[in-house]
Amino acid sequence: MTGSGVSGLGDRMADIQDGQEDRGIALDRVGVTRLTHPVSVRDRDGRVRETVATVSLFVGLRPSARAAHMSRFLGVLGRHPEPLDAEALRSILEDLRTEHSAPTASIELAFTIFVSKRAPRTGSESLMACEARLEASLAEAFDLVTSVRVPVMTLCPCSVSVAGTPGLGQRGYVTLSVRSGGRVGIEDLVDVVEACASSPVFPLLKAEDEHSLLASALARPMFVEDLVRNAAQALDADERISWYRIEAENLESIHDHSAFASRERGR
Amino acid sequence: MTGSGVSGLGDRMADIQDGQEDRGIALDRVGVTRLTHPVSVRDRDGRVRETVATVSLFVGLRPSARAAHMSRFLGVLGRHPEPLDAEALRSILEDLRTEHSAPTASIELAFTIFVSKRAPRTGSESLMACEARLEASLAEAFDLVTSVRVPVMTLCPCSVSVAGTPGLGQRGYVTLSVRSGGRVGIEDLVDVVEACASSPVFPLLKAEDEHSLLASALARPMFVEDLVRNAAQALDADERISWYRIEAENLESIHDHSAFASRERGR
Amino acid sequence: MTGSGVSGLGDRMADIQDGQEDRGIALDRVGVTRLTHPVSVRDRDGRVRETVATVSLFVGLRPSARAAHMSRFLGVLGRHPEPLDAEALRSILEDLRTEHSAPTASIELAFTIFVSKRAPRTGSESLMACEARLEASLAEAFDLVTSVRVPVMTLCPCSVSVAGTPGLGQRGYVTLSVRSGGRVGIEDLVDVVEACASSPVFPLLKAEDEHSLLASALARPMFVEDLVRNAAQALDADERISWYRIEAENLESIHDHSAFASRERGR
Amino acid sequence: MTGSGVSGLGDRMADIQDGQEDRGIALDRVGVTRLTHPVSVRDRDGRVRETVATVSLFVGLRPSARAAHMSRFLGVLGRHPEPLDAEALRSILEDLRTEHSAPTASIELAFTIFVSKRAPRTGSESLMACEARLEASLAEAFDLVTSVRVPVMTLCPCSVSVAGTPGLGQRGYVTLSVRSGGRVGIEDLVDVVEACASSPVFPLLKAEDEHSLLASALARPMFVEDLVRNAAQALDADERISWYRIEAENLESIHDHSAFASRERGR
Repeated sequence: MTGSGVSGLGDRMADIQDGQEDRGIALDRVGVTRLTHPVSVRDRDGRVRETVATVSLFVGLRPSARAAHMSRFLGVLGRHPEPLDAEALRSILEDLRTEHSAPTASIELAFTIFVSKRAPRTGSESLMACEARLEASLAEAFDLVTSVRVPVMTLCPCSVSVAGTPGLGQRGYVTLSVRSGGRVGIEDLVDVVEACASSPVFPLLKAEDEHSLLASALARPMFVEDLVRNAAQALDADERISWYRIEAENLESIHDHSAFASRERGR
Repeated sequence: MTGSGVSGLGDRMADIQDGQEDRGIALDRVGVTRLTHPVSVRDRDGRVRETVATVSLFVGLRPSARAAHMSRFLGVLGRHPEPLDAEALRSILEDLRTEHSAPTASIELAFTIFVSKRAPRTGSESLMACEARLEASLAEAFDLVTSVRVPVMTLCPCSVSVAGTPGLGQRGYVTLSVRSGGRVGIEDLVDVVEACASSPVFPLLKAEDEHSLLASALARPMFVEDLVRNAAQALDADERISWYRIEAENLESIHDHSAFASRERGR
Repeated sequence: MTGSGVSGLGDRMADIQDGQEDRGIALDRVGVTRLTHPVSVRDRDGRVRETVATVSLFVGLRPSARAAHMSRFLGVLGRHPEPLDAEALRSILEDLRTEHSAPTASIELAFTIFVSKRAPRTGSESLMACEARLEASLAEAFDLVTSVRVPVMTLCPCSVSVAGTPGLGQRGYVTLSVRSGGRVGIEDLVDVVEACASSPVFPLLKAEDEHSLLASALARPMFVEDLVRNAAQALDADERISWYRIEAENLESIHDHSAFASRERGR
Repeated sequence: MTGSGVSGLGDRMADIQDGQEDRGIALDRVGVTRLTHPVSVRDRDGRVRETVATVSLFVGLRPSARAAHMSRFLGVLGRHPEPLDAEALRSILEDLRTEHSAPTASIELAFTIFVSKRAPRTGSESLMACEARLEASLAEAFDLVTSVRVPVMTLCPCSVSVAGTPGLGQRGYVTLSVRSGGRVGIEDLVDVVEACASSPVFPLLKAEDEHSLLASALARPMFVEDLVRNAAQALDADERISWYRIEAENLESIHDHSAFASRERGR
């Protein structure tokens, strides 16, 4: 196969994707999914950290367009190595929309961030992983949903109420999603969640830290329902947040399933 | 701990969940998730088959209710061993709503079904697994979304257009979700998906079946976008279906990511 | 493409897999993986239950053989619908070895079983899921490893030792694998695991069951290391078992990682 | 709870883990698993890149030791932020063994690396993700197994042999594990795998790249068995490698399962 031949093939391939489509059926989202890509995020202290994202990129497809050129999604992503923030996401979406002559564009990124934790008594430092998620779209307006999944500890109020029985401490995960125009950062959401549980969790705790943590939790037993209401109160009071969804899941210690509660509200 | 003491404790525990809650915050969904439970489904030929489901059960929680009694979700589920259909799901939801004095109830079940396949030339029989999903809720009305994820094969039109190059056959998955009041069964949805791809896939194919399948696929190359439009045409024409969502994903052979297209429409 | 053409093609395809291979390199395992297939297992009470398995099937490939005929793995599996036990597995392996003229054959199946549980005080019944695994091979001799992963509850001894602090109950998973020539069943292994923990877990517990369970656990606090040693003592004393591996993982309530201990021994 | 009280509690907790254990049962591995931690790796060009690892850390436990102090695993890991290489891993293991007065120590890390790819015709650059794994242990000697999972494309020889039928290109994954005393790097293993397949895969390919890639693959059709033998020949010839395991899995386009082949050999 010669170079000129290949070039000719390339043109013919393009023809197929750009070919006639007359069924009159628009597609909501066309693009690439399950892509693993390096990204960077700026933490609260301004430091840029590299992490690994699972990425989906989409455009809307007009009824008359046969197919999207999938390589263009990769090309746009490769041209945007800057740290992920609202501005960077909007810029990616504008490029996608232009390159595809598309009515809409959207992007979803899921990645791990690390937050610095200090143990309550010894001050021992460690890094705790939280799964973050950014979902941005550009149609008439730009929209951004910021999410984070935070591990916490809750102590069951039933067990605490009975003298002589052990408490049922259990690990839980709270996934908090908000629309704030990018004004509320991922680490701010971690703070909200940790303040709403019986206790935060920590990667590194020495014996005296564990006891301090348990003593604090004992003063703050709660059901998964209480946890969600605590978070709802905090988010209702934050004027920067126009919409939120709180999903809390407790990994029950005495069952092999989870207890769950959720609330979603917009202003 | 004596029996009478335990009984007393049980009463006190109930008190906590039924206790006062005065923050005025309703919760959308409260319940249990990540439960693995045996279920049965009736296939198209009327035969009842046992399978394994991941189950979530929820009720809405009024602002004045402190917490749900989680054991009641398990109790209701245990009292409904009948094959899963619209009637059974509605009955479970009514029981949940009654037991919890709740405004709403919902259930989600994900499980594997098997469909019988016959190889195109030799007629060799095998069983193909598809992941099914039922999501039912009861608020003002009963709502049911039936979904299935079906593996298919698509052949890239670009590769077929060039003499002397191999075609790019690739595995894909189409997830079809519909609202039909339970009138369209899971296996009907499998049929719709298989009719829309370059070819169905089969667990068992002998050499002559493979060649027959490839010859058929060669006559029907398509992009992931074409696949979704094919399905949309079939669903648009089916009056039993009041809403659908089609999500198609091709596991690209020359990339380590997927090509994706989707369309969602209600009447 | 005509029928006779297809038939001819089939013959030519067979030629390729049966073609010459002269590099002198044997392959340990050749076959199919990630296959989802319906299987049935006979429970302790003799009742046959259907479940869903992820299956891998392999044969060893001699240096002179170019490739295995993959459809034969599916054919053999389809001809063995009988409940899975040592005899059925050996029969599948003998068929695989014969059909492939292979020196060795092996099979791995992972599936969910359900065990009946009765809550400790109220006797409420529910079904608890456990993940089981069978790994069988046929070379000079037949070999079978039976495994099961059982959810349990452990109570941290540190927390119990301090008056006034809540106990740290946490969910754990113990995976027990044994060689016993098929004489020790999956449910027997579940019994071993449950007897070694601070407490079993149950899908359905009413308030008084929870308190009974907590009281029992309080009398039996343990580290993950204790749990493994408890199981080792039980298995060391069982003459039917010629080899075992115990892996225990505790989902720490105050961390987002697990504590782990393991021991593997043969006679 | 007062500060001095907490301090006293800490001392008492330590007592429990260090307490008497007289059953005479050694444990092979005790430690922490499912920990998510930031790590860095030095790529072939000497550049240090940050990534996210899932980490397990273990020590062997003597029969007389009751339990390990789990916080020490976190402490050791936190004191080793240097890029992961054989020397760093050995240093971590020596620290673990010392801190736990343990006979053995081991570590397992799984993380994503990115390798730079240039499309075959246009030279378009993109970053391809591969899953890497390091397993190191320290007993009598230091041992290190380096693994990487690489996506590739294979073209079925059967389909190619028949004029007029499309080729069955399909994505595959090859997991290569070697012992080389740390002298063979992860990217070297990626090179070995890519040279053994019908074609490498790329995140970003333009139309003419796709056709070039397909033309190359057409000249090199292979079964999954051929792929493993190609890799075995390359590894057998590399004197730095004292042991290897090759596992290749093809995501069959016409089935919903994988074809698999493996070979493991030591010198």
